[in-house]
Amino acid sequence: MKESRGEFGLIRQIQQETSVSAEGVILGIGDDGAVLEVPAGQLLVAATDTLNAGIHFPDDTAPFDIGYKCLAVNLSDLAAMGAMPRWALLSLSLPDADSTWLQSFTAGFRSLAKLWNVSLVGGDTTSGPLAVSVTALGTVKPGLQMLRSGARAGDLVVVSGTVGGAARVLDLLQAGEAAAEQHLLDRPLPRIKLGQVISAYASACIDISDGLIADLGHILQASGCAARINTEALPASVVLDGLEDGQKWGYQLAGGDDYELLFTLPPRYEAMLADWSKDLELKLSVIGEVQQGEGIKCTATDGTLFQPQRPGFDHFGKS
Amino acid sequence: MKESRGEFGLIRQIQQETSVSAEGVILGIGDDGAVLEVPAGQLLVAATDTLNAGIHFPDDTAPFDIGYKCLAVNLSDLAAMGAMPRWALLSLSLPDADSTWLQSFTAGFRSLAKLWNVSLVGGDTTSGPLAVSVTALGTVKPGLQMLRSGARAGDLVVVSGTVGGAARVLDLLQAGEAAAEQHLLDRPLPRIKLGQVISAYASACIDISDGLIADLGHILQASGCAARINTEALPASVVLDGLEDGQKWGYQLAGGDDYELLFTLPPRYEAMLADWSKDLELKLSVIGEVQQGEGIKCTATDGTLFQPQRPGFDHFGKS
Repeated sequence: MKESRGEFGLIRQIQQETSVSAEGVILGIGDDGAVLEVPAGQLLVAATDTLNAGIHFPDDTAPFDIGYKCLAVNLSDLAAMGAMPRWALLSLSLPDADSTWLQSFTAGFRSLAKLWNVSLVGGDTTSGPLAVSVTALGTVKPGLQMLRSGARAGDLVVVSGTVGGAARVLDLLQAGEAAAEQHLLDRPLPRIKLGQVISAYASACIDISDGLIADLGHILQASGCAARINTEALPASVVLDGLEDGQKWGYQLAGGDDYELLFTLPPRYEAMLADWSKDLELKLSVIGEVQQGEGIKCTATDGTLFQPQRPGFDHFGKS
Repeated sequence: MKESRGEFGLIRQIQQETSVSAEGVILGIGDDGAVLEVPAGQLLVAATDTLNAGIHFPDDTAPFDIGYKCLAVNLSDLAAMGAMPRWALLSLSLPDADSTWLQSFTAGFRSLAKLWNVSLVGGDTTSGPLAVSVTALGTVKPGLQMLRSGARAGDLVVVSGTVGGAARVLDLLQAGEAAAEQHLLDRPLPRIKLGQVISAYASACIDISDGLIADLGHILQASGCAARINTEALPASVVLDGLEDGQKWGYQLAGGDDYELLFTLPPRYEAMLADWSKDLELKLSVIGEVQQGEGIKCTATDGTLFQPQRPGFDHFGKS
């Protein structure tokens, strides 16, 4: 939260270009800490995620998209908790104090912050290899927070939107091919409204960052359950059109970075899915079922077992 | 907040080795976000600071000290706000998943977290150049938060402990000389109790990270005032013993990283300083006075003007 001259200019620039709301903000950027008012009767939800150049985004990613995405992945975490985002803190390591770069970065950050009325209330800038760390703060009514640990045998496994698109776009870019729909990788849409709508009904929820199988695995491990997934029920991104089934399912099951919500739903609420989907104009697909035991079995409708090839992304490569 | 296998092990190791308290923690590490309860009638205070290897600490700093310091500098920000620390989130970029390094790092983090009953409630680990970003969350009673903007002409300028020590130790280390009192650089003591005690009386407060002059400058700029500093009243760290006045004052006025509190106090409270000092077993020195106008004038008792040589540390070098 401290900054000297060069830094001070950057922080002030970020502040001026991102300040969009003062709701609950007693004191924002410019002091040693922000002072915030959590509404009475609400719990605070906090999530933090770092994006490193070359690891979480290709080195040549547009600064606008880096600014957008560093906030998006954190809002996605809040969405998966059923929380409403309110405030964010930003730590930015920059190789040099490039004001043009920063202007574009903050424009990206701001475009999403404005959409959800998220106030940037603190942060710091340091010189170093390009890395962005965001802490997002939100609120939730007690009892409505969605955990990973509540899934029970018999629950439906549901996913929002489509999956596999971000990983496919990344593969195309890395192969030097032009990728349509690059927004799938660079500008994921945090499913905040969906999180709000399902929070009273879903038994468990997570957002898909590591890949559907890996993230479903987190739910199942926390809940002590197994699951069966119907590969033919997986909603496919348009960028997977034309791929053969095995390759497509690989992207859908093991590709990361989609930031869709994956949740489990007691079957008595199944009929509500159609209403939610219509209200939110968002596809919601039942892709399988929670079962007793452990592990995840992926099968086609005819019963053929499918083993996805791509492991979920592990930052330390022990897969 | 998401982790896959290799990461998962690191996060769990950090969790096991740092979890010290569950006060106000409805849900800690292991989900998409932490769920926290801010006590009724309290405001939330949030601060974030990143430490990069080679910039904020020498490359060969012991991992224990990095773990300690990354939390300390954030707790120091909360102390300067008059807030009581409660929770922390940690983003760690590591070149490789070195469990021995991490064990030592978390031991350092934990040693300070335990002292102040701070719970680590979230974080992520990524591979990348060594960098540590911490967000500290605390609480303060409404009206007791200390800002930078409340200083008024006539207020006393007060500093806790001693100053200049951390910068002197860093210079000695960088010159390849053995430095006694290396803890001054590596293990600053966040002045949390002092922040609590003075919060109802101090008109402005900041912690000294960039250097006394630079940080006093932040107070004066926010408050629209000037100040006069008596160089002979500056409390000197023992590691400055034997230096000639000009060099000593340089360290005291412009050396950073001391993490003492610098605050302004209406003169009617001056008599309380002795009591606070005794209660906290902490030196509190009146080093000057807030005045009308702008700028900072440093003079010796005989009136000689002193111009410190070392600029406050600017991460982008525009000083």
